[in-house]
Amino acid sequence: MRTRDAFLSHCQASLGALRQEGRYREFARLEKLAGRFPTYRWHGPQGVREVTVWSSNDYLGMGNHPAVLAAATRAVAEHGAGAGGTRNISGTSPLHAALEAELASLHGKGAALLFGSGYIANQAGISAVLEALPGFIVFSDAKNHASMIAGMRGAKAAQRVIWKHNDLADLEAKLAAAPPGAPKLIAFESVYSMDGDIAPIGAICDLAERYGAMTYLDEVHAVGLYGATGGGISEQDGTAHRVDLIEGTLAKGFGVLGGYIAGDADVVDYIRSVAGGLIFTTALPPAVAGAALESVRVLKRDPARRAALAERAAALKAALDGAGLARMDGPSHIVPVWVGEAELCRQVARRLLAEHGLYATPINYPTVPRGTERLRLCATPFHTDAMIAELVRALRAVLPRIGPGVAPEAAIGMLAAE
Amino acid sequence: MRTRDAFLSHCQASLGALRQEGRYREFARLEKLAGRFPTYRWHGPQGVREVTVWSSNDYLGMGNHPAVLAAATRAVAEHGAGAGGTRNISGTSPLHAALEAELASLHGKGAALLFGSGYIANQAGISAVLEALPGFIVFSDAKNHASMIAGMRGAKAAQRVIWKHNDLADLEAKLAAAPPGAPKLIAFESVYSMDGDIAPIGAICDLAERYGAMTYLDEVHAVGLYGATGGGISEQDGTAHRVDLIEGTLAKGFGVLGGYIAGDADVVDYIRSVAGGLIFTTALPPAVAGAALESVRVLKRDPARRAALAERAAALKAALDGAGLARMDGPSHIVPVWVGEAELCRQVARRLLAEHGLYATPINYPTVPRGTERLRLCATPFHTDAMIAELVRALRAVLPRIGPGVAPEAAIGMLAAE
Ligand SMILES: Cc1ncc(COP(=O)(O)O)c(C=O)c1O
Ligand SMILES: Cc1ncc(COP(=O)(O)O)c(C=O)c1O
Repeated sequence: MRTRDAFLSHCQASLGALRQEGRYREFARLEKLAGRFPTYRWHGPQGVREVTVWSSNDYLGMGNHPAVLAAATRAVAEHGAGAGGTRNISGTSPLHAALEAELASLHGKGAALLFGSGYIANQAGISAVLEALPGFIVFSDAKNHASMIAGMRGAKAAQRVIWKHNDLADLEAKLAAAPPGAPKLIAFESVYSMDGDIAPIGAICDLAERYGAMTYLDEVHAVGLYGATGGGISEQDGTAHRVDLIEGTLAKGFGVLGGYIAGDADVVDYIRSVAGGLIFTTALPPAVAGAALESVRVLKRDPARRAALAERAAALKAALDGAGLARMDGPSHIVPVWVGEAELCRQVARRLLAEHGLYATPINYPTVPRGTERLRLCATPFHTDAMIAELVRALRAVLPRIGPGVAPEAAIGMLAAE
Repeated sequence: MRTRDAFLSHCQASLGALRQEGRYREFARLEKLAGRFPTYRWHGPQGVREVTVWSSNDYLGMGNHPAVLAAATRAVAEHGAGAGGTRNISGTSPLHAALEAELASLHGKGAALLFGSGYIANQAGISAVLEALPGFIVFSDAKNHASMIAGMRGAKAAQRVIWKHNDLADLEAKLAAAPPGAPKLIAFESVYSMDGDIAPIGAICDLAERYGAMTYLDEVHAVGLYGATGGGISEQDGTAHRVDLIEGTLAKGFGVLGGYIAGDADVVDYIRSVAGGLIFTTALPPAVAGAALESVRVLKRDPARRAALAERAAALKAALDGAGLARMDGPSHIVPVWVGEAELCRQVARRLLAEHGLYATPINYPTVPRGTERLRLCATPFHTDAMIAELVRALRAVLPRIGPGVAPEAAIGMLAAE
């Protein structure tokens, strides 16, 4: 049997199955309009139409901040389009170095290291740590992001122990059951992006200290958004100095592109020296580093934008609750609206877009477990009261009405029955 | 023992060992000057100084092409700094879609898929293929890039068979020894970036057909540079239609950032649907996609730039040979100058920079095998005759003179003895 034929059949069968399960992803073509966020131009099957986007991770609209755009444009004019080399082979500009220094200071750490994305930062960073010592055991929160799992899987010899999501008792039981002499890493997130809940960082650090473990914290959905200067949940609750490695992205709250880790200077220098995902790839363009640097600096001194985000998230939650729409409750800016079935989720999103000009991505397996499909909404500082009202009206039209207090499990049945 | 202490000791010991072996990497801070490529501003310990860069992978200077810069600036003004979401979650702009269509057409394939980098394209793309069928055997050229190896290692169940670099007899022997029924992938590069030699693509495709294997070709150091429209070596030698998957970067010949794979539409759609390194990460900024799109289009109709590169590479090789400097011979634009020892390589590069204002990265293990350390030089269309003469003078001053015809092995001894 020719491999090509077997592989092609596999591809076609898999695509067919995805379509049948309602999990086939079509990437909607959405044209961001710099001055008019969150209004986009949707290039759909019936032509081009203006829509309001409710699923952007540009949480603070920094991707459209005039100072950030000016920094990007200036860096393009001065330094060109690309870096032209890996970090080691002529690709490190003074802007990369300044950005790393700024990120280290943001988290109160000795050093920070840029990667091409938060995904690579997690994958390369976690692998580098776990490969450093024999017998490493990594204690991984059950809801950790795919990029963290990729980092753990990348370290072949490390053992992975999964603890129940945000469950301190389960974490402690698992730490206690492990050999006391084995090196240990606790890997977790601050804001969990699909549920919107937040980890008890201090209590996890207590356990880490009790059991001699290191800590690795993904603050991807929190940096820029929380803390007095945008250092994330670990700045807000005063635990940053207790966490060994903090990982973040420049592509969400900061609105640009790139990822990083921050920690002790020697640790970061070590990871810089061994991580394949850093060494063997072209550096981010100077313009990306320059724009991100400006964004981090602006957000350090602009708590008003963070306050506006919190206020808008509260307004969205109140409006959904007032309309009796089932949402998953949580303390963060992320507002998941429950659907519970893949094909239904896709249909709801399709109708929102086609009939109401509102874009919200259906979140299906493998991003979330099957049976917990949802729309994931975020109100940025640029989502107005009128936009919230419009969204709620549209959701009431396309989702069945469910009184507050109805369990998500019951909601699935009601929605699926529609 | 606290994990933190053990890990920190490991980091410090490793950094000490790297320093002692002369393999500790310091990232030189090099400020690219858009209008003056390959002149950069080096921010060194003694302040800022202008230098000529000989180690850029912006092979054609496209990172400084006015049309590319204009496209980047326009896209920033129109669409902002970042994509604001993953490809599936509001991050796909019409520019991403247009770039993918342009890349598919560049390689004469049904579809193409963008990734954050060539590294991720290889890692995610190869893993996705190898995980698709049970019992996959991947036949990997011994000099394949770290990112391809990461992709193979990522597919845990696949078996990896390494064949001697560019050695058709060895490849055939290994294909013949494998179970005929097992799915097979031959993974290789066109231009090998550290040696500058080129793979016999057609002959490898012959073997692939004979043994029912699929082919995966990394054209990272060839796209934009070779072929009538910049489609790489597989366009130049008319083999593109015989290769199943072609992988490339937008960060070298095209001068921007990003990576991609091109192939059959269903195959690409399948990889799009399953590859974690694509699904779980923020899309490239619209400005990066826009700049890369412009670069691909410009290079499609600008063979003069490719001809200039070939002419400059020949001029550099002739000048080095005329001066009796030991280089590794090869048919491509990449010109490695032999050093053969890590600490010496570092010293040579340091002196070139500090004493002569010339930047060439020392290439040490693990990028190349120990004992084959080298300077890797590239003359772009913007490196003048005067710059070549200056480089040759400087190399003669910092390297011992070796007549042409001296084997690299002998040269190591002579150089190391210095
Ligand atoms: C928790 C978490 N970590 C890491 C990432 C990856 O960050 P980036 O988009 O910068 O690759 C994401 C999402 O993309 C995420 O949700
Ligand atoms: C052969 C090869 N493949 C892939 C890559 C990765 O490409 P990128 O720099 O776009 O990540 C590189 C170098 O960086 C390379 O040399």
